This record gives sequence, C-alpha cells and structure tokens, in this order.
Amino acid sequence: MFELISQKTINLPIGYKMAGIHCGIKKSKKDLGVIYSVEKANAAAVFTTNKVKAAPVLLSMKNIENNEIQAIIVNSGNANACTGEKGYSDSLEMASKTALALDILPEDVFVCSTGVIGMPLDMEKIVSGITKISQILSTGSEKNDDLLNFANAIMTTDTFPKVYSKEVLIHGKKITIVGIAKGSGMIHPNMATMLSFILTDANIEKSALNKALKNSVNDSYNMISVDGDTSTNDTVVILANKKAANKEIFEDTEEFYIFCEALNEVNTALAKMIVKDGEGATKFLEVEVTGAKTVEDAKLISRTVIKSNLVKTAFFGEDANWGRIIAAAGYSGANFDPGNVYIYLENKVGKINVCQNGHFINFSEEKAKEILKEKEIKILINLREGKEKAVSWGCDMSYDYIKINGGYRS
Amino acid sequence: MFELISQKTINLPIGYKMAGIHCGIKKSKKDLGVIYSVEKANAAAVFTTNKVKAAPVLLSMKNIENNEIQAIIVNSGNANACTGEKGYSDSLEMASKTALALDILPEDVFVCSTGVIGMPLDMEKIVSGITKISQILSTGSEKNDDLLNFANAIMTTDTFPKVYSKEVLIHGKKITIVGIAKGSGMIHPNMATMLSFILTDANIEKSALNKALKNSVNDSYNMISVDGDTSTNDTVVILANKKAANKEIFEDTEEFYIFCEALNEVNTALAKMIVKDGEGATKFLEVEVTGAKTVEDAKLISRTVIKSNLVKTAFFGEDANWGRIIAAAGYSGANFDPGNVYIYLENKVGKINVCQNGHFINFSEEKAKEILKEKEIKILINLREGKEKAVSWGCDMSYDYIKINGGYRS
Repeated sequence: MFELISQKTINLPIGYKMAGIHCGIKKSKKDLGVIYSVEKANAAAVFTTNKVKAAPVLLSMKNIENNEIQAIIVNSGNANACTGEKGYSDSLEMASKTALALDILPEDVFVCSTGVIGMPLDMEKIVSGITKISQILSTGSEKNDDLLNFANAIMTTDTFPKVYSKEVLIHGKKITIVGIAKGSGMIHPNMATMLSFILTDANIEKSALNKALKNSVNDSYNMISVDGDTSTNDTVVILANKKAANKEIFEDTEEFYIFCEALNEVNTALAKMIVKDGEGATKFLEVEVTGAKTVEDAKLISRTVIKSNLVKTAFFGEDANWGRIIAAAGYSGANFDPGNVYIYLENKVGKINVCQNGHFINFSEEKAKEILKEKEIKILINLREGKEKAVSWGCDMSYDYIKINGGYRS
Repeated sequence: MFELISQKTINLPIGYKMAGIHCGIKKSKKDLGVIYSVEKANAAAVFTTNKVKAAPVLLSMKNIENNEIQAIIVNSGNANACTGEKGYSDSLEMASKTALALDILPEDVFVCSTGVIGMPLDMEKIVSGITKISQILSTGSEKNDDLLNFANAIMTTDTFPKVYSKEVLIHGKKITIVGIAKGSGMIHPNMATMLSFILTDANIEKSALNKALKNSVNDSYNMISVDGDTSTNDTVVILANKKAANKEIFEDTEEFYIFCEALNEVNTALAKMIVKDGEGATKFLEVEVTGAKTVEDAKLISRTVIKSNLVKTAFFGEDANWGRIIAAAGYSGANFDPGNVYIYLENKVGKINVCQNGHFINFSEEKAKEILKEKEIKILINLREGKEKAVSWGCDMSYDYIKINGGYRS
C-alpha cells in the first residue's frame, strides 16, 4: 500500500559494483545478488541475537572477525537456516564460488540468505547463478539499474525495494553512504532484524566503523517492530573501502560524529521503509516517548507500545483506543507513574489529546477519526517526569498479515 | 468455534450464593454479577503485574490484605481503568452499596471490573443493578442457573462461559472447589491474566491458601497466551469459607497437597478454556517442552513459542512451518543447543517428526496436513539435554482476531 519513496538518481560510493538476477530459487522474481568492492574494505556487522543462527550468519560472523571484506553474496527465497552441516558447507561453497568468479579470497566474502527456514538450498541453481552474475559484474551496466536489481534480488515478502543514500563532506572530501535493505516480516527490535547492506567509500578505522554501526543500529533497526518475531538470519553489514581518499576517521573526533550522523540518517530511513512495508501494513506508526527519567525507560515503553498486537489492531480499525497504549506502557517494565501520563495522536491533519494524567478526557471522536484515517500517525506519550526521550516505528496489523503468514511456506 | 465443554450438574461448595443480571452497561447481555459467602472466607488473590492498575484492582488489593472476604461484585463492559479519582470512588461505592444490600462490611467486599479502558462507569446503572441482584440473592433460585448467570455476567468478548468443578476428600470431609473465569483477549502469561473466581468450602489456613494459589497460577494462567498483551484488571481470587468443616489445612501437609492438586486441576481447566475461547481462535495449541536443563528454560521456550504471531498464523494456515517454532525457541532467551532439538506435531489423528537435531528432515506433508486440519494440536519440543519440562497453552491467530480487535471499543 505504500509507494516506493521517490529516489533521486543515487550516486554510488566510489569503487563498488553490484548486480541482481533470477537464478531459480524463486519462481520468477530475482533471487541472487552480489556486491563487489574493487578493493578490500573495512567491515563491521551486527547479527541476530537469536540462538538459532542460520549457516550464512555463522560463516559471516567468522569471516568478518578475521578479514577485510571484498564481496557480499545474498540469496532470497531460502534462509539456509536449520539445515545442519549441509547448510554450512553450502554457505562455504557460496563464498568459494563467488571468490573464484571474482578472483578474490573466499574468506573475504560475506554470505547472507533470507527466506523459508529449514529447507536445503538448491546449490546447482546458486552456483550457475554466481557464474551468470559475475559476468554481469565484469561487463557492467547502468549503475542505478544494478543497484535496483540487487535491491530487488534480496526481497522476500517485501513489496518494494529499500534504498537510501547520503553524501557528506569530511576532511574536504565527498563521502557517500548508500544503504540497501530488505525485510517485512519477522521484524522485531532485538539487534539487527533484517538484512541491510551499507556501502561507503569513507576511509574510517575499523573500530570506529564498528562503534558507529552498533550505536546507529540501536536507534534505528532496533526501534522497529512488525510482529515481535526475531529472525534467524538478520544481519546489518557496512563496508568502507577508503576510495573517497579522505584522511582516516578515528573514534570520537569531529569527523567521526559527522560520519555517524550521516550513517544514522541512512539507517533510520531504511528502518522506516521496512516497517512501512510491514506484512499487510496499512498504517505507518511512530511512537515518541518524552519526559522519561532515563533513555532506557523511554525505549522500553516506546518499543512495547509499537509491538502490542492490540495497539496495532486498534489502529488498523481506526479506533482511538488509547487505553491499549497506556496498558502496553504499563506492562513494558519501565519505571513511571501512570498518573502523570499525557497521550496525543498527531499527523498532518491535526493533533488531539486523548489522555491526561493517565485517565480519560472528553475528546472529539470526529477529529480523532480524521487523524486515524490517514496512513501515517504519531503516538505521543509524555511521561512528564524527566528529560529523556525515544522514538520507535512500526505498522498496524491487518487481515493481510494473517493471509501472508498463514500460507507463507506453501 | 469451540463449544461449551459439557458440564455435569455442578455441585456448588457449601455456603455460597451467586447471581448475574443485565444492568445496562452492555446493550442487552448480562453485565453485573455477585458472589456471596454466608460466612466470612479466608481469601487469597493474584493481581496483574501491569503498572497501570484499574481502580477495582487497587481497592481489592487493599481489602484482601486486611480482611476476610464475604462478597465479590463484578461488572463487565467497562474496566474502570484509567479513570482517575472518580474511578476509585466508583469502586468504593460498588463495595459500599453491595455491603449495604447484603448487610456485610464494605471492606469485606472484593471488587472487579472488565471491559473497555478509559471510560467512566455509569454508576446509576451499577447501583440500581446491585439492588436488583441482592433481591435475587435473598430469594434464591436454582443454584446451577445462578452460577451460569454469574459466569455469563462477567464475559466480554468471550463466546462461552467458563466453569469447572472438582471434589476431593480431605480429613474424611468432602471438599468442593468451583472456578468461574472470563477472558479471551489481552491474555498473556505474566501473573493472572484474566478474571478468575475460585470458591471452596475448605477450611484452610490463610498462608497455605495463598501459597496454593500462587503456585497454581504459575502453572496454569501464567502458561497461556492469546495476544501477548497483559491487562490492567486481571485478577485471580480464591475464597475458602470453611463450611466443609474439615480439620484446618496447613502448609506442606499431605492434605495441603491433595488440595493443591485439586486446585491445579480447576485452574488448568479454566486456563485452557480461556485460550480455546481466544479472540478469533480456530485452533487450540499445546506446547510441551521436554528435555530441558531447568524448568525456567522449559517455561521460557514454551511461553515464547505459544506467543509468537508467526507460529500462531502458521497454524491458522495449517502450515507445518516448524522453522518458526525453532526460531521462537531461539529468541526466547533460554539456554539450549539448537543442534539437539527434535520437534513433533501430534493429535488424535497421528504424530509426525518435523525436525531432528535442529534441522529439516523429509516428512510427509500429507500426514502433516491431516494433523493440522484438526482443532487441537500438540507441539512437542524435545531439547534432549536434561529432565525438566513445561507445558503452555494458546490458540492460533485468525482474521477474526483482527476483526474483533480492530473495532472493539466502537
């Protein structure tokens, strides 16, 4: 129901090539993508906290710890999760065949998979796909087309590709950051809950890159929720290949903060696109908690409200049922006095106060209806106890969520 | 979709009267109920852990701490939650008017409300209802009709009344325990997640009663989930009025364990009825985790799987998508090795192994379909690491869950 956020022509960071094709895992849609950096890149990643980690996650965790990264290979349609030893050797083969085709080292390849859990990968299709895709990379077509092909190739139940770019000046050099993400189900804030690939030409020292990514993930991907389920495959990875030729960026310098801000903009934009494309979503919801004593309390409340099935279904029904909002805040585990809480609903058509001091006030149901009819709604919760705040993003829960997930595997 | 579990004529415990009527909060259905004990009863209760506690919860917490209980007044249709000072004085008035009508003390009255959050109670209707209901109590009609009327009067989106009874011999005396519960939404295991009234004529010492209730709640109501939302009003209360004239039961005696076992049977039966009546439920699911190192791990996994939206929608879609089951176990926070896990689906038509050592095996999709077509399905998860186990109960998530909750308040 949400259109693709209009993108100006995206300038790729210097020194990256990518491609996306159909190799046959899905019936007809693109299902295999590659990113290639002309030079080895500093890399950092955040992985799912799920105890059940898919084979490509296990392999990529190992490769990124010990090596710079030069290529990323991703397939959609099959998560290669819960596939045992064969799954791990399939991931290894994906890395080695990609390395062979691109003439790089297998341990410099980062591998991702997304799709159904518990089915063996069809390696014949993957391997012939890798050959085909490396030929495209070596010839090279329109860069923006390639980017969009890659963005399409990593989609599962996504309805639109998710891309965002940002340019900043650092040490007088233009730095470009491009992010490409997928995800619309099994999306829940608990470290990196989808696939997201961030490419930059910045020259940034490895531990600084790592710190920048971890902080940014906490305020972006970890503040969204579609359904409360944390996937087995989720990964956010950033490559920084130094091709912008800026002076190396170190932690806690002015340049570091400029880089962090740009990175946050990219990650937050992608996180919002993911929930806008939440399975069956008809509304985009933003929950802003202000007046908290601690950031942790604000985050707990914000994330619990955005995750509540009853809040989600109320917004699908365009019902100003604020009692469900305060009830969710109440079971979040955060420390606050319900007797201080004010709640507002707001968007472009207006703003309405629906709760004062934790209890009902007479508000215009008519005005509430007008606000709730819109596709984007902010839920503002003011605890009136402190100065800390947090924002999370999510979507409503509709009949289509049930439809999509009742028959996903079949 | 589930029929009322067939009840033999229920023998009430000695010394209780009850009634349920329509007082006008709901359009036409019963919405006000009273339980009266001819003598003051030892009482114990477990209340919602939600920080946002409804006015009747706050009042009942106080009354049960300081007094024996002689009557319970309950209304449905309006939760009297988030209603500020007026809400609390309304609860006080419910207690005092009930006490006046029954000629008992106001502080010996336990008050409950359930329904919409954030709307003021219509006290005129409640007060005239209390007068009417006390007249019924004083005349007295068929006991089982009265019980059913009460069970109906506490319902909200419930589709059937929930009643269970059990008799045991203790010290040569017949002890009766009857439970009456309501609940089908905002049901999530986090201490006492609905209204449940347990009446017994046993003579049992107060701290023993308290211990018996708390233990039983942990293995029954706290092991069910409909939607992951914890209500502001949830209460389980037990009255024990000593009319069976048995020798007083003390903690950790043989008689105590007989009583506990009977109480568990009543609470578990009611808990299962609640999830069978889960909003929009078409399937009853039982998740049994065995082979865990600790009970806590078994409970964490069991409760996380039963709560997962993706597991619930898969069962609605009759899809043997076991990957979602192991993924939920993986993000539960429990300690286990995914590589040891076996998963089975089972019910009266058969049993099928869908996962071995944490990964896929070839199973008959046809046989799986046969099992999944049924209304009751067991999910068996064997961690194969220890000797501890836990069982939880829940339901699937259907289009009707969205329909019921999209428009509940309006």
